[in-house]
Amino acid sequence: MSHSAEDLEYMRRALSLAARGAGHVSPNPLVGAVIVRDGRVIGEGWHAMFGGPHAERNALANCTESPRGATIYVTLEPCCHHGKTPPCTDALIEQGLARVVVGSSDPNPLVAGKGVRILREHGIEVVENVLKDECDRLNAPFFHYIRNKTPFVVLKYAMTMDGKIATRTGASQWITGEIAREQVHRDRNRYTAIMVGVGTVLADDPMLTCRIPGGRDPIRIVCDSRLSTPPSARLVESAGSLTTILATCCTDPDRHAPYLAAGCEILTVPADADGHVDLAALMQALGARGIDSIVLEGGGTLAWAALRAGIVHRVQAYIAPKLFGGAQAKTPVQGVGVAYPDDAVRLSAPRVTQLGDDLLLESEVIACLQES
Amino acid sequence: MSHSAEDLEYMRRALSLAARGAGHVSPNPLVGAVIVRDGRVIGEGWHAMFGGPHAERNALANCTESPRGATIYVTLEPCCHHGKTPPCTDALIEQGLARVVVGSSDPNPLVAGKGVRILREHGIEVVENVLKDECDRLNAPFFHYIRNKTPFVVLKYAMTMDGKIATRTGASQWITGEIAREQVHRDRNRYTAIMVGVGTVLADDPMLTCRIPGGRDPIRIVCDSRLSTPPSARLVESAGSLTTILATCCTDPDRHAPYLAAGCEILTVPADADGHVDLAALMQALGARGIDSIVLEGGGTLAWAALRAGIVHRVQAYIAPKLFGGAQAKTPVQGVGVAYPDDAVRLSAPRVTQLGDDLLLESEVIACLQES
Repeated sequence: MSHSAEDLEYMRRALSLAARGAGHVSPNPLVGAVIVRDGRVIGEGWHAMFGGPHAERNALANCTESPRGATIYVTLEPCCHHGKTPPCTDALIEQGLARVVVGSSDPNPLVAGKGVRILREHGIEVVENVLKDECDRLNAPFFHYIRNKTPFVVLKYAMTMDGKIATRTGASQWITGEIAREQVHRDRNRYTAIMVGVGTVLADDPMLTCRIPGGRDPIRIVCDSRLSTPPSARLVESAGSLTTILATCCTDPDRHAPYLAAGCEILTVPADADGHVDLAALMQALGARGIDSIVLEGGGTLAWAALRAGIVHRVQAYIAPKLFGGAQAKTPVQGVGVAYPDDAVRLSAPRVTQLGDDLLLESEVIACLQES
Repeated sequence: MSHSAEDLEYMRRALSLAARGAGHVSPNPLVGAVIVRDGRVIGEGWHAMFGGPHAERNALANCTESPRGATIYVTLEPCCHHGKTPPCTDALIEQGLARVVVGSSDPNPLVAGKGVRILREHGIEVVENVLKDECDRLNAPFFHYIRNKTPFVVLKYAMTMDGKIATRTGASQWITGEIAREQVHRDRNRYTAIMVGVGTVLADDPMLTCRIPGGRDPIRIVCDSRLSTPPSARLVESAGSLTTILATCCTDPDRHAPYLAAGCEILTVPADADGHVDLAALMQALGARGIDSIVLEGGGTLAWAALRAGIVHRVQAYIAPKLFGGAQAKTPVQGVGVAYPDDAVRLSAPRVTQLGDDLLLESEVIACLQES
């Protein structure tokens, strides 16, 4: 079914409102709502902070006139259960909304469709699936986590137009321009955690903080099979004030001690066949620890391991209009690599965003690595 | 100065007409023309084949009513000299056009502006530089060749979203989908020659022909410093019917003989400091041979040598939404590579074209390699 230009326009507005909650609502979803009557917006709202009112209630509260008989556009099916706040369906029914336009359905299969059904039972017209793909994408991490209890993983890298993440000497500052780097920090605000391999810690000694005003620092995770992160690393030294998790196969309490003393958490994880951290097991453990989303930022070796383990859901490739050349210069995904083109990890057609002179390509993983 | 929406619209139409001549007008430029009166198109034309009438004359001939008092949109400044055909300025004056809207100026510095001046002297209103960047880009090869007498070189490659042009085993068929590969063949029709390194001949034994209906096969050039192309290569075996040039430093007539017997041309070129074909000298020689444009298609080693030699003008990166991984898998530009990010070859912000699920990124080279 195709939707009217008007419905699409207001849902687009609701989507952009939803995004304003980024960094503040986790582990809740991002939701936006717009209330319209006679072609005029009479109220807008979004879910602004975890524990606070839902988008629908904020939009109702902000109405400049009575919402009776109006249409509400909401990016996610209104809830019909008592959580931290009473059901939104109740509020919509009480206030006499005539029509509810919905983007995503509730991701919880036990609840999906129930909110819509209750509204319809009360004589409210409901239109579903308006800009559903965009609405689903906005909350892909949330939806994934609800269903799987493991984090949604975004593989992110910045490369030149000839596919290099560093020059032959290993220098990588900077590949992209300021506007693209700002976007990276917005994503660090948006996703719950950031993970790098120990190679990146040894090479770059990064802080992995979020450098935008009002931003939230992500939980920092180092994948460090043999526990070779230097205790003098900036990540370790700042672990007292910023949550830092070392994921390792090393079970020796003496070797754990200095990191624990510095404030790091240590997550011991089984080794895979190669003696490295079993990434699928790590994702289970991080999910149990409440981490719903991770940006994988560092290192072509870790990227390959993550793709092999099948834990990557989305790829973000920043591309800078420059060429480094170099047969030895590092590329975004190293490791052994596939043998034949048909074995490749398959991605969806990329969404393209221009960021200054750079591009951001975003794709979902649609088929994992074929081992051959 | 900003131009009216109407002027932009008709110039865009003229540009799309111009492109229809691709593959048929070289060494002439691609030119399109649209004649408009009272908001209606009354005639259209383009330069359709070398030696045939110019775009302006074709548009005039196709007019459905008198062009007296009308406006003509033409992507390139009308010629004012007798070449294979009489001056277009004469025709525009005789037929009483009131207004001439021009995209690119004549690339020949001795003639640029002369056509426009003659029109104005006859009381015709002339507007210049409408969609100038797009018009210039369409004929960038022609303009470059007119000014420099060396070919315009396009570095073209197809890579995965992690920057690989082949898997670790060297397999590269296929990276992109059919729609992107068709575009590659359209470019083979458009550019005069195609050049690969001998490594590509040894690895892939390609034909490098143009596989679109009515397409023109490009002149095939192999950059082969030591003359190690196998005489059994398909390129050599088909050299009797398709122009094939081997560019080499080898001057031994005995070694030339089998290739000459098969119909190849041999171009002996001085060696550079590394003992390879001096690419700048080769471009001079190919320019003198009348070759105005080259697509550089094969091999990261040749790509690096070409960038180092400063002979590349445009980059076309086809990007497929898949990941191969592999520290040893080949990338579009190999060789030694730059030492530091500031030494990179700098490109313009890419133009992005979606081709099925693949992307084509096109940039101009704006600063050559900095040696460090």
